[in-house]
Parts: sequence; structure tokens; C-alpha cells
Amino acid sequence: MGDAAATRARILEAAVTEFAEFGMAGARVDRLAARAGCNKQLIYEYFGNKEGLFDAALESTTANLALALAFDPTDLTGYALGLYDYMVEHPEAARLVRWHELQRPGIAGALPVMVETNRRLLEAITSAQAAGQIATHLSAEMLLVFVLSLVQTTDDERLVNGGEPFPTARKREALCTAVRRLATPEP
Amino acid sequence: MGDAAATRARILEAAVTEFAEFGMAGARVDRLAARAGCNKQLIYEYFGNKEGLFDAALESTTANLALALAFDPTDLTGYALGLYDYMVEHPEAARLVRWHELQRPGIAGALPVMVETNRRLLEAITSAQAAGQIATHLSAEMLLVFVLSLVQTTDDERLVNGGEPFPTARKREALCTAVRRLATPEP
Repeated sequence: MGDAAATRARILEAAVTEFAEFGMAGARVDRLAARAGCNKQLIYEYFGNKEGLFDAALESTTANLALALAFDPTDLTGYALGLYDYMVEHPEAARLVRWHELQRPGIAGALPVMVETNRRLLEAITSAQAAGQIATHLSAEMLLVFVLSLVQTTDDERLVNGGEPFPTARKREALCTAVRRLATPEP
Repeated sequence: MGDAAATRARILEAAVTEFAEFGMAGARVDRLAARAGCNKQLIYEYFGNKEGLFDAALESTTANLALALAFDPTDLTGYALGLYDYMVEHPEAARLVRWHELQRPGIAGALPVMVETNRRLLEAITSAQAAGQIATHLSAEMLLVFVLSLVQTTDDERLVNGGEPFPTARKREALCTAVRRLATPEP
């Protein structure tokens, strides 16, 4: 990796940490620059402004996630479990996704990695539906969105579970049950 | 309503608007006071600090929601639809819930209205499960959390739907299908 590419990667890494903690409005570019060990001006040079940097951090996080997760449309349960495990191991990714819902709504559709990842997932689900391997009572779009929703951990979990998210093993088991119920083909 | 109660209600209403837009870190108490037509000092007197006010706004929103929604455990689909319709009509409530996940995680368990509402929901689901009216493959806690997750609209919807959330009629229909699949008793 050249010097410029290495610096860019370091800035993105610092951006993920900073934005995950404070969100876009609360993030401070000078603190972020200090963390990346570069000067503030360079960040603006590479990413334009704070919004540009937030979007790049979100896209980089999504790209890492897509690389880490295999997707087999006939095994939606496995995908849900993999995504859940990833989010548990990378709480900063889970927070970044949440922040963007509030502070950059609609931006996902403008980020090539997200558009492309999503297109491939939908295409695979649609084919599996056509082949009778996945239920067709929900459209591919709806099924994908629902599976992604089930994976998220929310404060509701803490509320019903004495202040903590569900234990990992229990949530994984429930995810299997729920995704199977949603995706099993009609008899 | 006495003068003090009316002022308190006006502050809470302004707080919901302010926090829904900017979150807790971004909210400004002076702007909020101007919106409520009272002085800033009074807000601190009534609610202690910004955190206290945020929590009160969240609890008031949840209380309104609980009042607006009937809960029949044998009709979880109806509950999901009612909750979804409420969130569509009250986007500020949906945003407030999202902000609290990021900025006040775990606080729900300290808010009497949320604890009590939740306790009643779980009790009702558990009884319906014991009576064979709801599936038992998921615990009452897990089933409730999953149903609440499905209702949320996320940026994933916009991503798969050309930049917009799913059309209301389509989302309602899919919610019925999904909740029914999760909750229908095992044969």
C-alpha cells in the first residue's frame, strides 16, 4: 500500500471509531485527525467534508461486512447468524448503521458498494424463490429487509432481559427459528 | 390542567420535537425553551438536566403510544399494524426511539411506563402461549422483540425500494404475513 493509500485507510479507520461513538453531528474532525495521526486539512482534501467522510466510513464498513459474510440464498438462516455474529463482534458497525438512519437517511442508495451488495442479495433471493427453495409469500425485497431487522439488537431486548441484550446463544437460536419460519417454502 | 401542569406538558411537547430532530447531544435547551414559550431555568427546575428531559420525552411518547394502541395477544398482527400506522403518523416517535438506542441505551428499563407496558405485553403473550393461541417456538420475550423489529422502517427499505420506504399498503400486507408466520401455533 502506498503512503497515500495507507493514510486514507488510517483516516477511514479513525472515522469509523469517531462516528460510531458520536454520530455525524457530534463527531469532531480535529479529534479524528489526531486519532489518525494526520492533519485536518488532509481529511478535507481526501473526503471533501464531514458528510463525505461519514459516507465513506459507512461504505467502508459495509464493504468489510460484505467481504466477511458469504451469502447463500438457500441458507438465509446462516446469513442472519453470520450477520448477527459480525455485529456482536463489531459494535461500531452496528452503531454506524443506526446513526446513518437518523443523520444520513437515504444515503445508502448513493453508495456504490451498498447498492451493488444489495442488488446481488436480491437477485440471489429472487432466483431461489423461482427455484422453490425460498417462500414466495413475501417479495425478495421484503424478506431481505425483515431478516435484516430481526438481526438488530435493540433496547427492547434490554427491557425484557433485565438490562442486557439477549445472550448470544439464545438470540442465535431464536434467529434460526424466526428466519426459518419466514423463509421456508409453502408446502 | 393547572398552570404548572400545562407548562410542563408544553415543555414535553417541545422536547419531543427538539430531540426527535437533533437527538440528545444535538438538542439545545434554549431553542427548546423558546419553542415551549418558557424560560430555560424552569426546564431545569422541572426536569433536572438535558438527560432527564430526554428521558421524560421518551417516556411521554411511549405513554401516548400505549394509550393509542389496544393490545390483544391473540391478534399480534393487529398490534403490529397498529404500531406501524402509529409510527408512520408520528415520525417523531420513531426517531426518538432510535436516538435513545444510541444516546440513552438501557434507559428504557428505568422508565416506569416502559417497564409496566412491557410487563403487561409479555404477560398477555405468555398466557396466550399457555392457552395454545400463539406459537411457543419463541419465548414471549423473543417474539415481542422480533415483532417490534419487523415494524421499524429502516434505510434498507429505501435501498431496495428506489429511495423511499415501502408503500404503506405493501408494508402492512407483508407485516401481516410475517407476524402470522412467527406467531401461528405449531400444528
